[in-house]
Amino acid sequence: MSKITAAITGVGGYVPEYVLTNQELEKLVETTDEWILSRTGIKERRILKGEGLGTSYMCEHAVRDLLAKTNTDPLDIDLIIVATVTPDFIFPSTANMVGDMVGCKNAFSYDVQAACSGFLYAMSNAVAYIESGKYKKIIVIGADKMSSIINYKDRSTCIIFGDGAGAVLVEPNTEGLGVIDSILKSDGSGYPHLNSKVGGSRYPMTAELVDSDERWAYQDGPVVFKFAVKNMADVSAEIMERNSLTGEDIAYLVPHQANKRIIDATANRMDVGSDKVLINIERYGNTTAATIPLVFWDFEKKFKKGDNVILAAFGGGFTWGSMYLKWAYDTK
Amino acid sequence: MSKITAAITGVGGYVPEYVLTNQELEKLVETTDEWILSRTGIKERRILKGEGLGTSYMCEHAVRDLLAKTNTDPLDIDLIIVATVTPDFIFPSTANMVGDMVGCKNAFSYDVQAACSGFLYAMSNAVAYIESGKYKKIIVIGADKMSSIINYKDRSTCIIFGDGAGAVLVEPNTEGLGVIDSILKSDGSGYPHLNSKVGGSRYPMTAELVDSDERWAYQDGPVVFKFAVKNMADVSAEIMERNSLTGEDIAYLVPHQANKRIIDATANRMDVGSDKVLINIERYGNTTAATIPLVFWDFEKKFKKGDNVILAAFGGGFTWGSMYLKWAYDTK
Repeated sequence: MSKITAAITGVGGYVPEYVLTNQELEKLVETTDEWILSRTGIKERRILKGEGLGTSYMCEHAVRDLLAKTNTDPLDIDLIIVATVTPDFIFPSTANMVGDMVGCKNAFSYDVQAACSGFLYAMSNAVAYIESGKYKKIIVIGADKMSSIINYKDRSTCIIFGDGAGAVLVEPNTEGLGVIDSILKSDGSGYPHLNSKVGGSRYPMTAELVDSDERWAYQDGPVVFKFAVKNMADVSAEIMERNSLTGEDIAYLVPHQANKRIIDATANRMDVGSDKVLINIERYGNTTAATIPLVFWDFEKKFKKGDNVILAAFGGGFTWGSMYLKWAYDTK
Repeated sequence: MSKITAAITGVGGYVPEYVLTNQELEKLVETTDEWILSRTGIKERRILKGEGLGTSYMCEHAVRDLLAKTNTDPLDIDLIIVATVTPDFIFPSTANMVGDMVGCKNAFSYDVQAACSGFLYAMSNAVAYIESGKYKKIIVIGADKMSSIINYKDRSTCIIFGDGAGAVLVEPNTEGLGVIDSILKSDGSGYPHLNSKVGGSRYPMTAELVDSDERWAYQDGPVVFKFAVKNMADVSAEIMERNSLTGEDIAYLVPHQANKRIIDATANRMDVGSDKVLINIERYGNTTAATIPLVFWDFEKKFKKGDNVILAAFGGGFTWGSMYLKWAYDTK
């Protein structure tokens, strides 16, 4: 019996209609289109507008897209995992609501919190479940409504983040395709540099805090940049080395879309050419847990069955990691 | 080669010092000790006091207890999973901070959100990782500082919930002990009956909301009670049936401690006598994700190697489930 691997067998996505351009940000904070573009690679990002629409709304659309494209009956789904830092509610999980919205009545569901590395972590969950033989059809979603925790007076964050959701179907594979290896890492000593300072159990929200700048997502850009460049490159090099891969063996690098310069540093370290590095940060910014599945969504047609693909992420926690997979299908 | 199973090999716990009694609650809301005790089985609960102490503080103590009792080097831990609805921060994960606090420098870590079923869900994650052969030493924590989201003017919730943290070590077993089966279920259509209405991405916190009753955990007690009784009993009966177990085969039922009457209904349905039902709700109330590991912590010495144990939970989402395990060790 050949070993069961876990393969991505379909991709769906959703980004909101509203486009927040660099030009519009020039009116909100002291910045320029040229500065943003040269430092981050971002031209515009999507923002979810509308009363009472949370992260689940975007997940719902991404999953409907996924189910339609893969011709999958929602009743066949065993499990839905949502990676997010912006759940609809403190509890219950956003995944519970998504399951109900899309009619996955036989699925159990939960959220994973691992910040910008959330999609890789949730994928790793799905891989373990598939490899253990317990479940057969798992939907992994990375989704964030970052606009709900961003201070549009703070130019260190508001120029970077955007909203979106990407979803993949994960199924068993017996051809040796799918996820071959993954390396996940965390270092909680990094939390002061990238976090949401208040509003949880450590410092519950108060009337004073809700009107303060403290309530929004905080990032010490230069510190995070330094750690991101080193760790995302290191872990990508590590997974290549232990799988005896050179830059030439890699068809595509799918990096977390936090900053064009972090991506370039990782690609250089991996010795893969820029034509192999998939980037859509210019259109969406950093959608946190959604970036990697949104790259799959945008570039699905590029992938060929058997392609060696490296995923890499770094983010709040700090959390980071890389995943090596052999793409499992050709897109018609 | 015998199949690798995932076994709990140690237990740790922590509850805060401050005891909130029914008598003290009589002064806060219109209730009586007799009413609370007869309807819920709760006499007192623990509350974490102290500026800047979040759920991670309790996790840290529970994990230190676990590592000491099992004589485990923190550097040997591969993964830490925290199930919680009251993370320290919106992001990053509480697990990241706990890993740093206790020196698990080689572990990656993330939070799982599945409300009162969180510990079972996180255990299921750990089981999949152990069975897949990927990791060898996993700490699963259930922890909640419910006092950070409870309205102490709302007698439908403040009499029920308390704070605490329980932790278990999960390792591979080749003797056929540990987790044999699990059934996990979700139904997001139940979310309006037990949730945190605002403060997430759907309805971000505002100055008006932060001073309103809307900001706190909400429970429609009678509706939740009805679903809990049916679903916790059904799923427990289901796991017994598919593993050909009768009430006589069960050494202990370890139920989520939400309400004594829900526990009794589940035990009746399973046909297990009250001497086999482990209960500590009278001292801690409902500590959400922490109840099951805190039962392990309180009653660890009762369990004998090979004992058939059923775990069962129901909570917000709705989420529910049961797990069948053969206890893997005797306590000296």
